[in-house]
Formats: sequence, C-alpha cells, structure tokens
Amino acid sequence: MQQWIDRLRAGDARALSRVISAVENRAPESSDLLKALFPHSGHARIIGLTGAPGSGKSTLVDQLAKYYREENRTVGIIAVDPTSPYTGGAILGDRIRMQDHFSDPGIYIRSMATRGALGGLARTTAAVATVLDAAGRDMILIETVGVGQDEIDIVRLANITIVILVPGMGDDVQTIKAGIMEIADIFVINKSDHEGAERVEREIRAMQSLATRDDKWTPPIVKTVATNGSGVKELAHAISQYEAYLKREDLVLKRDIQNWQERLTEMLRDALLDKARAHLSDGQLIHYASEVAAHKRDPYTVVEEIVGRVKKN
Amino acid sequence: MQQWIDRLRAGDARALSRVISAVENRAPESSDLLKALFPHSGHARIIGLTGAPGSGKSTLVDQLAKYYREENRTVGIIAVDPTSPYTGGAILGDRIRMQDHFSDPGIYIRSMATRGALGGLARTTAAVATVLDAAGRDMILIETVGVGQDEIDIVRLANITIVILVPGMGDDVQTIKAGIMEIADIFVINKSDHEGAERVEREIRAMQSLATRDDKWTPPIVKTVATNGSGVKELAHAISQYEAYLKREDLVLKRDIQNWQERLTEMLRDALLDKARAHLSDGQLIHYASEVAAHKRDPYTVVEEIVGRVKKN
Repeated sequence: MQQWIDRLRAGDARALSRVISAVENRAPESSDLLKALFPHSGHARIIGLTGAPGSGKSTLVDQLAKYYREENRTVGIIAVDPTSPYTGGAILGDRIRMQDHFSDPGIYIRSMATRGALGGLARTTAAVATVLDAAGRDMILIETVGVGQDEIDIVRLANITIVILVPGMGDDVQTIKAGIMEIADIFVINKSDHEGAERVEREIRAMQSLATRDDKWTPPIVKTVATNGSGVKELAHAISQYEAYLKREDLVLKRDIQNWQERLTEMLRDALLDKARAHLSDGQLIHYASEVAAHKRDPYTVVEEIVGRVKKN
Repeated sequence: MQQWIDRLRAGDARALSRVISAVENRAPESSDLLKALFPHSGHARIIGLTGAPGSGKSTLVDQLAKYYREENRTVGIIAVDPTSPYTGGAILGDRIRMQDHFSDPGIYIRSMATRGALGGLARTTAAVATVLDAAGRDMILIETVGVGQDEIDIVRLANITIVILVPGMGDDVQTIKAGIMEIADIFVINKSDHEGAERVEREIRAMQSLATRDDKWTPPIVKTVATNGSGVKELAHAISQYEAYLKREDLVLKRDIQNWQERLTEMLRDALLDKARAHLSDGQLIHYASEVAAHKRDPYTVVEEIVGRVKKN
C-alpha cells in the first residue's frame, strides 16, 4: 500500500487512477488508504459547480480548468453525473473526448455516477477529493447536475460553491434556481449572450435582497459564454476575491469546522448502517420486510427492535 | 391521541392536516401515531410521478386527480418541492390556488420541502403517505422534481412510477432522462403537441431495447397535453393495466417485500443516527470536527471511535 501512496504523491497518474478506483469500489484497502492519505490533504482549493441541466456546466468547468493550467496550477475534475446502465458509456465517451482534447497530465478527470449504494455519492465524492488533494492537485473542480441533496453535499465538501444559471428556462427551473440560491458563493449566468440574461440577473438580485447569509459576503454575478471562454477570467477573479474575503475575515477554519460537523455526522450514519447490516442477515431482513408488507407488524416497532439488537451485540 | 385517529379515520380533514403536521415536524407523539395508523394503511394505490423541471408535472397531477374524482375516488397529493426560505411562500401560494380551484374535500394536497433534516425527505414522504392511506384516501399521487436520490426513494414508496418527459429539452436533459429510465413503469410524453415528441418516443424505445427489467413488463408510452387534459384518460388506463399485470403475475406482494427491505434499511440508518446523536453532545461533535479540520486527526478513525462508543452505551 505504501508503494501506491508514494507513487501517487510523486504525481504518478496511474497510481492516482488505481487508488481512486479502490476508493470508489470500497475495496478492502480503501479505509487504510484514506487514513494514510488524509494527513497529506488540505492544500487543494475545492470548488463546487452546480446548476440546472443544460446550463453548460461541463463546458464551463473545461474552460476554468484551462485557465488554471495557464496559471500553472494542476487540476482535478470530479464530474458527478446521473448516469445509469443506459448512459454510462456515453458519458464516459464524453469524458474521454475531453481528456483527449487536453492531453495534459496536469488535468485529471474522473466521472462518477450518482446511483449506487446508500450514502454513496457524498462519501465517494469526498473520498475522491481527498485522494486528489493528497496527490497534490492545486484546484479540485466538482461538477454536479441535479437539484436534490447532492448540492448540499457539495457545499459541505467545497470551499467555494458556484451556482450556474442560464437565461430563459421557464418557471419550474426558476423554482430550482431558488432552491439552490442560498448555497451560492458566486453566481454565473452562462449563455449570457442569449436573450433574458438581464432578467436572470434582476431575479438573482431580487432574491438576494431577501437572503440571510451568516456572513457579509454578497455573492457576485459573473456573466459567461463558456463556449467561447468569455467571462472565464472574471470568474476566476471572483473566486480569488471570495478566497481573499474568507481569509481576511478569518472564516476559513470556521467554515471547515462547520462542514466537518455535517460530514462526520453523515459518515457516522453510514458507518452505523454498515454495522447494523453486519448484525442483520439478508434472511432476517426479508423476514421483517415480509411481515411489514403483509401488515402483520408496523415498520416503526420493527426498526426499534433491530436497533436494540445492534446495541446488545 | 386516539381521538385524532378516530377523527382522521372518519374523514375529518382538519384532523388529517394536524396529524400530517405532527408527523412532518416529528412531534413527540408522531411515532405512536404512525404505529397506531400503520395497521389501517395498505389500501391506497400509491403513484409516483417524476420528471425533469419544466415537464408540467403539477398540471398533469391535477388532471389525474380530477379524473379520479370523476370516478368517485378520493385523492391525496404529496408535492415534494425543492423549496427554500426564498420560495416557500411562492410554492405554498401555488398550492393554495390549486386547492382553491378544486375546493373539493375529496382532494387533499400537501406540499413538502426536500431540504431539511438528514434522511428527511424519504422518511417524511413515507410517513405522510401512510397517514393519507390510513385516512382512507384511495389514490395517493406523489410528485417530485429532481434527479437525485429522491426518485429512487419514490420507487420504494410507490406501487407505480411514472416518468414524465417533454420534447426538446436539450442534451443534458436527455442524460437525466436516461438516469431515471430504469425506474419507469409508465412513460408520459407531456406537451406532446410540441415539436420533437416523436423523437422523444424513438429515444425511449431505443433505450428500452437495452433495458433489463426484472419482470416482463414493457413500460408503455402515453402522450399527454396536461394543459388541456388530453391523454389523461389514456394515462389512467395505462395505470390500471399495469396494476392488473402485477396482480395477474402475482407480483404485488413480492414488490412490496422488496421495497420494504430498502425502506427498513433506510429507517434503520436514520434510527441509528438518532441514537448516535443522543450519545454525542454538540460540544463533542464540534471538538471532533475541529480536530479533523485542523488535520490533527483523520475523519475515518474518528468515526470508528464514535461507533465504538455508541455500542458500549
């Protein structure tokens, strides 16, 4: 194991891929790997980018990665895609094209599925970010699609959260935008050459006037056209400014501690579930499920009974 | 408490609202209420409807509710919205308008936020569905926005899952569609009078040819225009046909048992987390989080330590 860690720390891309795979698949050695790598992490800047489907997230992430490369910083991209048996191939193809386009070892891209084990996304994304961080990547860009709990999980993981909006996507999308308004440190209006960009900006401003952040930062609004790179420099500048603000106000550690409270709680929940599963055979679970499905017993009492048993063992 | 249960079972809408609120807020009495109500549940048909933002879900749900009312069946609607401090009011306003429009006690509508406590959405939606079911509602329609874990949770809850697509929503949306393809028992192409409806249908068929369901059901594709009610009768017919299929193949109980295995596991996880929290004061959690944020300790070892303590107590 130490061999893999040494190679990964020395910048070996193959070791990086191998360790990430071990962590993703929760291989037996993954827990020891993460424990050994964690002390080497904490240097990377982690940037979360989220937005509605069709907002051009991937293109923007590519442009931002390019920008950082020109500044000689290494980049790791974690693309969290709502993949499935149907699309896994297509998305992979996408990413391979992108990797091909860069053909630069300074950019490492990893696509991840949101489906899978319970608590899988948060846990795996966090673990992969730790690996990239320990491998010495300067900037880690995490990109997600979706409007669910995923966005909240990103916030906990990222030092900076960027919410990407686009002009003219109808009312339902406005609702979703609103749903993720409070997690944005920076807003991006992508496709800002399209009609309606001003309107989106006005809407953000209107919602901001109602907002109550726990700091005095007013999230700036950056207009981009990711397809031609316009506004990307301004976005990178906004990111730097927010980082400077956090440092100036002595908020970096405070934020980290807040985030770790949430993340430890989640990790704890997952660990306890693993424990519970170890005490509950598949046969027992099916037995309980059958009783509940037949309405012979209620699920609330059943769960209390299992919890009691876990504690005794 | 028995008084509330009796009134709820007698069809009293105010008792229903009150019990649902108690369950949503996890009031001290909610556990006993759910235990007492569960034996009365199991009669309602639970239909989950999900789709990308802007697909017209709410309008379709309204139309379906109307249709069932004309058949003299009572309806409960659970609208799971990605609400936030910013939009809570707007969505509520929406729902009040809708309720006003019906002004029919045979339709009960409850909006719920996806944000909040850990594991909150799945747990609360399930509990509210149990209450509506025990209150004698014939049809329970659960409507969600989003592409995350939420959809999977609906599947576990619902007897039937309907995935709503619309023509012409760009490539990213196609990806999401694919992400939820495997959970659909029925597909709806809403706004089917828009250009591109045929293309969506072809895409569904193409993806279906790759699918591996654990039964022999081929999800039908129903075309609707929710705004004028066109296709709603056909949708209700498709729902009946799927129910008939499940009965004919003796799959109803089998499905229920599978779903309860998943749901019990989730409930167990939440219960264990509650237990863990009871053993871990806020001060201790902050202490651990501070150590991890300062990189003095790694989070994996910390969580193992807490799990060890939970078991001892």
